[in-house]
Amino acid sequence: MQIIDGRAISNEIKKEIAKDLKMFIDAGGKVPHLTVIIVGNDGGSQTYVSHKIKACKKLGFQSTKIQFDEKITEKELLEKIKEINKDDNVDGLLVQLPLPKQISDTKVIETIIPEKDVDGFHPLNIGKMLLGLPTYLSATPYGIIELLKRYKIKTSGKNCVILGRSNIVGTPMSVLMSRKSEIGNSTVTLCHSRTKNIKEITKKADIIIVALGSPEFLKADFVKDGAVVIDVGTTRVKSDKTKSGWKLKGDVKFDEVAEKCSFITPVPGGVGPMTIVSLLKNTLKAAKSNFQK
Amino acid sequence: MQIIDGRAISNEIKKEIAKDLKMFIDAGGKVPHLTVIIVGNDGGSQTYVSHKIKACKKLGFQSTKIQFDEKITEKELLEKIKEINKDDNVDGLLVQLPLPKQISDTKVIETIIPEKDVDGFHPLNIGKMLLGLPTYLSATPYGIIELLKRYKIKTSGKNCVILGRSNIVGTPMSVLMSRKSEIGNSTVTLCHSRTKNIKEITKKADIIIVALGSPEFLKADFVKDGAVVIDVGTTRVKSDKTKSGWKLKGDVKFDEVAEKCSFITPVPGGVGPMTIVSLLKNTLKAAKSNFQK
Repeated sequence: MQIIDGRAISNEIKKEIAKDLKMFIDAGGKVPHLTVIIVGNDGGSQTYVSHKIKACKKLGFQSTKIQFDEKITEKELLEKIKEINKDDNVDGLLVQLPLPKQISDTKVIETIIPEKDVDGFHPLNIGKMLLGLPTYLSATPYGIIELLKRYKIKTSGKNCVILGRSNIVGTPMSVLMSRKSEIGNSTVTLCHSRTKNIKEITKKADIIIVALGSPEFLKADFVKDGAVVIDVGTTRVKSDKTKSGWKLKGDVKFDEVAEKCSFITPVPGGVGPMTIVSLLKNTLKAAKSNFQK
Repeated sequence: MQIIDGRAISNEIKKEIAKDLKMFIDAGGKVPHLTVIIVGNDGGSQTYVSHKIKACKKLGFQSTKIQFDEKITEKELLEKIKEINKDDNVDGLLVQLPLPKQISDTKVIETIIPEKDVDGFHPLNIGKMLLGLPTYLSATPYGIIELLKRYKIKTSGKNCVILGRSNIVGTPMSVLMSRKSEIGNSTVTLCHSRTKNIKEITKKADIIIVALGSPEFLKADFVKDGAVVIDVGTTRVKSDKTKSGWKLKGDVKFDEVAEKCSFITPVPGGVGPMTIVSLLKNTLKAAKSNFQK
């Protein structure tokens, strides 16, 4: 059994991005600039945003954090987005989710111009993903594909079972794993809350991707010997062993499942660290296209 | 066993569209206008286009057919599309595929503005489909969903197997059948050329959708008793029994499979007749949004 080390891989990719950035700058390109909008003071969101800003600084990207009060109107937020859309100095723009009730996530995402949508959430970018056209792949799908690639896990002709049909993980992963591609060509089964016989289905899977947000859902008797297990779950549970008072739990009962696997991602330290790397890659890509205009 | 009668259902829907159109006109709306561009003289394409134009006439839609020589450049074609994009008198625009080699399908599809893309092929509309947002659903997926709905076939919690991962049928169907919706909520497995054990998989399916373009691929021993079988295949094969010298063959060996099914679509007369109905529905929808602007 081999543990898939997302931290090590993400560090490796960060080095590649730094190299790529240097070449771009040497060729006359400008420093990529990511703008992050955050609304309100949710602790989790604040942490995620500060990780993103830190990662930008570490790699030499320019970054701007725009903080709004949680009472901001939808109209004000959309106006700000439109302003940044037009600002040639900003390459990538993301609005941290979730948003307060008075604001529609969909409207916000559709207002960001696809060229700056480094989160890969805009319907145009999702449509391009489905069609296999060049696009900004969103963070988690990107991270999973990259981990499978760098651990040289064979996916062609394999039975891949995905648990969870969310718009940002399960459904796009089902498309990506089945399409004609180096990582892909799997026979994919997408399971969800209405699936009646999950255990029967996962037991036949060569690759299982769990994105339910249901801590320790996947137990040893769901998994066949030699399976590859990718755990996307990140639920915060209380803990008296950490300074923060909580820790992250995955969707996989790691200790008992790991023994049966050929490869498995831990939580934390698996898919999680990959998501920021995807954002950096997309921001550099945006800066390059912006430069070519 | 019940044969799913696509002709009857499509006639039923045409009547509904006519009613809906009358209400729209009575409320001050204008006659919907579909423009179809065809390049070259491929017999199949000419037949499809003339069916579309005829259907428009029959329902009282305005239609325009623009015929280009097969030697037209990509630039000329894109210019024409841009001109029609701006023409408020045209509600829906489609370019009949396939196109000659010198023209990129992708460029053509991406040039049609999403608001007039009544074929539902634009990446933005496909992304909206994946996200469950209002969009123009493309012809074949629309037709299949509608047949399942009108024959009151239960899909929730069922095992649905889709054969074929094309961008216009298999992949979007896999998304639609698994999403949270009246027709949907199935556990979907998407199979394709790299799938190793197709027969083993289809034998467990409650619903099988075959979109391979491989005549009579699905035989009786692939299907369990009581399954629902939807045949999307339409391959032209030579025939000395028809005036035209050819007939359509589906992907299902109908005579032997039908006996085992609870519901089955024939070819022709199953999914096929539904595709034009989808185009008419989308064109009326486009005219309505155009009217509201």
